[in-house]
Amino acid sequence: MSNALIECVPNFSEGRNQEIIQAIVQPFRNRKGCGLVDYRADKDHNRLVVSLVGQPEPIQDALIEASLVAIEKIDLERHQGGHPRIGAIDVIPFIPIQNIDMKGCVNLAHTFGRRFYQTTRVPVYFYEEAALRPERRQLEVIRKGQFESLKKEVINPERHPDVGEPTLHPSAGATIIGARKFLIAFNVNLGTSDLQVAQKIARAVRASSGGLCHVKGIGLSLMDRGLTQVSMNVVDYEKNALYRVVEMIRMEAKRWGVPVIETEVYGMIPAAALLDSLGYYLQLARFDRKQVIELALLSLADEEK
Amino acid sequence: MSNALIECVPNFSEGRNQEIIQAIVQPFRNRKGCGLVDYRADKDHNRLVVSLVGQPEPIQDALIEASLVAIEKIDLERHQGGHPRIGAIDVIPFIPIQNIDMKGCVNLAHTFGRRFYQTTRVPVYFYEEAALRPERRQLEVIRKGQFESLKKEVINPERHPDVGEPTLHPSAGATIIGARKFLIAFNVNLGTSDLQVAQKIARAVRASSGGLCHVKGIGLSLMDRGLTQVSMNVVDYEKNALYRVVEMIRMEAKRWGVPVIETEVYGMIPAAALLDSLGYYLQLARFDRKQVIELALLSLADEEK
Repeated sequence: MSNALIECVPNFSEGRNQEIIQAIVQPFRNRKGCGLVDYRADKDHNRLVVSLVGQPEPIQDALIEASLVAIEKIDLERHQGGHPRIGAIDVIPFIPIQNIDMKGCVNLAHTFGRRFYQTTRVPVYFYEEAALRPERRQLEVIRKGQFESLKKEVINPERHPDVGEPTLHPSAGATIIGARKFLIAFNVNLGTSDLQVAQKIARAVRASSGGLCHVKGIGLSLMDRGLTQVSMNVVDYEKNALYRVVEMIRMEAKRWGVPVIETEVYGMIPAAALLDSLGYYLQLARFDRKQVIELALLSLADEEK
Repeated sequence: MSNALIECVPNFSEGRNQEIIQAIVQPFRNRKGCGLVDYRADKDHNRLVVSLVGQPEPIQDALIEASLVAIEKIDLERHQGGHPRIGAIDVIPFIPIQNIDMKGCVNLAHTFGRRFYQTTRVPVYFYEEAALRPERRQLEVIRKGQFESLKKEVINPERHPDVGEPTLHPSAGATIIGARKFLIAFNVNLGTSDLQVAQKIARAVRASSGGLCHVKGIGLSLMDRGLTQVSMNVVDYEKNALYRVVEMIRMEAKRWGVPVIETEVYGMIPAAALLDSLGYYLQLARFDRKQVIELALLSLADEEK
């Protein structure tokens, strides 16, 4: 398993205090085999999303260190923010990339979950592919009522954690750990402060209300900037490419006389997804990904192993 | 300089004899730090173009080995082909990719040029950014009259090589070594057989007739397909991005009621050029190239070295 490559996107409940954010991110820096790809703190969400890629062992070690910092610095009793959460370390998903399959990532989630509880005493729920109860495949079910409700309801058997005693950590709550498929977190920011427009467009584009398959989406306010956002997960980028998502949102936004201001990719994206969209816009024919210098270098590096 | 990455595209004067081609290419295979990305032999040109990506040291070692093979196997006195040439190893450009700048590649060209002459006794001319005489920035000036003229004219001071005695190698001629910027070979195919339209669009888009800076272009027929082509070199993709080239051609093509059928990238393209154009079309904000999984993996691999 030493050549296995995973993505891991831990979410921490602090998006405002730079000192705390830096302290949490620190253990992910300069660690062999653990690549800190990106971290984004959102003030409105009051949440920090860290994107890691690398080998399972060093990533797990770094997660433990960062979690101990988060537990020390974050108090959920005082935490407010737009994004639902039940813990200081709210969610830790493991995502297979290379030389490891979903089953491997499920095992990883379970092993790590036990270690996490033993070290931190923060109880753990398993979700998505790592769920031990079918209804817990869905994050929303585990997170229902958030920290404030769960701390009371955790004593009910149907809300017992999968690892740990049926009581939340007083300041750090609980943590949701799991394994899932790769997804692209993609936001489109709109030149309007009218939340209803963003919500209407989200409904038009997402699968659950009849839009594009494999696209989840909600409308959000970006208060600080006076903008709104269609915040999406593209859960199968091979079936619905980013260009199709953007063009559909542009089309819908026209109806409301609203401009698309910019788009954002949160976290990781595979080169194939980018090349696919670029191919559309440039009408690129007969293109081989090995023509991209860096992708050629990567396959050379693989051959040398 | 050990983490420097360069492209190198040596051109050898043999495009027909597969045995010789393979013997020349062999030293570039399975060499740590020297990636053989592509090699294309053209029968009409009677020329072999090898695309390498990797670290300067192993690439230079491989170039010396391959050159010794080329000198042994190629006799310019018997060589005929459509492409101008003065040497068995005709041109060796070094192109900066990462952790090395143009000055670094100029130094590389000069150092390698001296080593090349000491090992092979084939005299060297420096061109483009590595030129020691201003007029030699242009390949055409050095190659004027080709091997057949140069072997007589080399005794004239203005045609003296930059390294070596003023006399060509009897069978291997001379070699042109230099440093240049990365260029992208980019074609746009038009849905018309009218060559004049392609030529008019080429004139509109290329720098020499007043279009986009850093773009060279001509109009060509694609007889077999009943199409025409604007065939271009984008010599500075950072100054004029592909999206700008494509959009200008689409704009000009509209004037003639002609559709853009497709576009093609020949040879290598850096990820930055692709991301830049995709960023335009998707209105991508705050995107870091490390968010692309493969590019993150590549920098992880680099860190581990």
